[in-house]
Amino acid sequence: MKKAWMNGVNCQTISILDRGLAYGDGLFETLLYTSGQIVLLEAHLARLQAGAERLRLPFALDVLQNELQSFLCEAEAEGLLGHSGAAVVKIILSRGIGGRGYAFPQDQSASQRVLMLFDHPSYSCSNRDEGVAIRFCDTPVSVNTALAGLKHLNRLDSVMARNEWSDPHIVEGLMLDDGGFVIEGTMSNLFIVKDDVLITPLLHRAGVEGVMRAHVLNLADQHKVETRIKVNLRTEQLLDADEVFICNSVFGVWPVTQLESKQWPVGMLTQAFQRWMGS
Amino acid sequence: MKKAWMNGVNCQTISILDRGLAYGDGLFETLLYTSGQIVLLEAHLARLQAGAERLRLPFALDVLQNELQSFLCEAEAEGLLGHSGAAVVKIILSRGIGGRGYAFPQDQSASQRVLMLFDHPSYSCSNRDEGVAIRFCDTPVSVNTALAGLKHLNRLDSVMARNEWSDPHIVEGLMLDDGGFVIEGTMSNLFIVKDDVLITPLLHRAGVEGVMRAHVLNLADQHKVETRIKVNLRTEQLLDADEVFICNSVFGVWPVTQLESKQWPVGMLTQAFQRWMGS
Repeated sequence: MKKAWMNGVNCQTISILDRGLAYGDGLFETLLYTSGQIVLLEAHLARLQAGAERLRLPFALDVLQNELQSFLCEAEAEGLLGHSGAAVVKIILSRGIGGRGYAFPQDQSASQRVLMLFDHPSYSCSNRDEGVAIRFCDTPVSVNTALAGLKHLNRLDSVMARNEWSDPHIVEGLMLDDGGFVIEGTMSNLFIVKDDVLITPLLHRAGVEGVMRAHVLNLADQHKVETRIKVNLRTEQLLDADEVFICNSVFGVWPVTQLESKQWPVGMLTQAFQRWMGS
Repeated sequence: MKKAWMNGVNCQTISILDRGLAYGDGLFETLLYTSGQIVLLEAHLARLQAGAERLRLPFALDVLQNELQSFLCEAEAEGLLGHSGAAVVKIILSRGIGGRGYAFPQDQSASQRVLMLFDHPSYSCSNRDEGVAIRFCDTPVSVNTALAGLKHLNRLDSVMARNEWSDPHIVEGLMLDDGGFVIEGTMSNLFIVKDDVLITPLLHRAGVEGVMRAHVLNLADQHKVETRIKVNLRTEQLLDADEVFICNSVFGVWPVTQLESKQWPVGMLTQAFQRWMGS
């Protein structure tokens, strides 16, 4: 980590009474900074605001926007954004200090805002150009209709799933729900293409509604790609797909060329999405 | 909070890079300290150790035991345990500092150990003697067979459920799973008695396997009370029970005398468990 702010000032620590630590009572966003700006910034902030409403977290959009701008200005002035100008910014929004007990703190007017600046991860270009190998995880995704879709701080399912493998050639693992239906990757959303239709799982019971997932769906709409949001995506349907890709806000779109023993070429529509994103 | 240690030294803060904050990647225990000792200490430590094994958290039992003992000695010397000598100690065990990403940190030899001392909550004696009113929550409990039973730091379901009501006369809310089956309270486990059989939900898909729940089941065994661990406890079965009670490590056993419009007297077997616990 290269720089951190808490509520607008330099800070590397948080109270051990913070409910983000105690209960995972908060949200986060992972933003790509490149060429002098944050990619899809408005979509990230809109998701954060919508999540804060669902969790009843106090949230002032203008305060966070101003802090983020000042944070990046200062980082640039301090020479922290590097030659490439690419970095990752993480925002944590936590409900803040509580005592014991699940009841919200009384008289709470603002959430805790943490901003962190990280180096851009050094992903191989071949991930984007030649595709990646992924696997199925045994750890199921957590199911909760009241929390599904949110990028909240309760991520133990992704943690345990991600640590099922250590082979560096496998870049992602897919998580299934309790019914055995495919939901998402540990750090990405999943799309398949079958007969020119773009298909991605519905995330009404589990999973994170990624900003890049929404961007892919928007691009599909703009480019007249037929789209289906699938309630129950079976592993057989996934393995029978014509193309498979994963996406997130940091790496964009990566073609999936291997899943367990199944192999695919890099897909045409997958490459089209990469082009439409300008990557 | 009256006192806090991190890894054996006075500390009120934790790194914003801690994975407990980032992902809820850790466990916690809530202990009752009374009459100069922690109640059911061995059971709490055994659960913590078992949880650490399931989450692959580095954990040295003897280190934590020694710290806990020193922490309480120091608190007593500092006059923090009060006249009654009752207090609550919270332990958080977090995987510690990470960068970005769900993969476990490399070369990690120990988890972060947070100890916190709180005042004993001032519960009314009538809760124990005359019973409590509870309700059903709309927020479902999170379902994940890989995480069920653990007292981990992913507690957003309990947080959102607990904040569905603010009426101080309602002391607890019951959470159902995605199938509508009764699992637990937001801060307690649930038992019912029907035809002299003690029944509690099986927690293989969701819920926390409370230390007090295990203690109740042990006492039932010692006193030859027939017990059933029920896979799918329907709300109708709960409402048709002869007795209902909730339990946790801090308050012990509280009879449930009201659930929505349904009422019960304080149950005979419920009172027997209170006696067997010496409360």
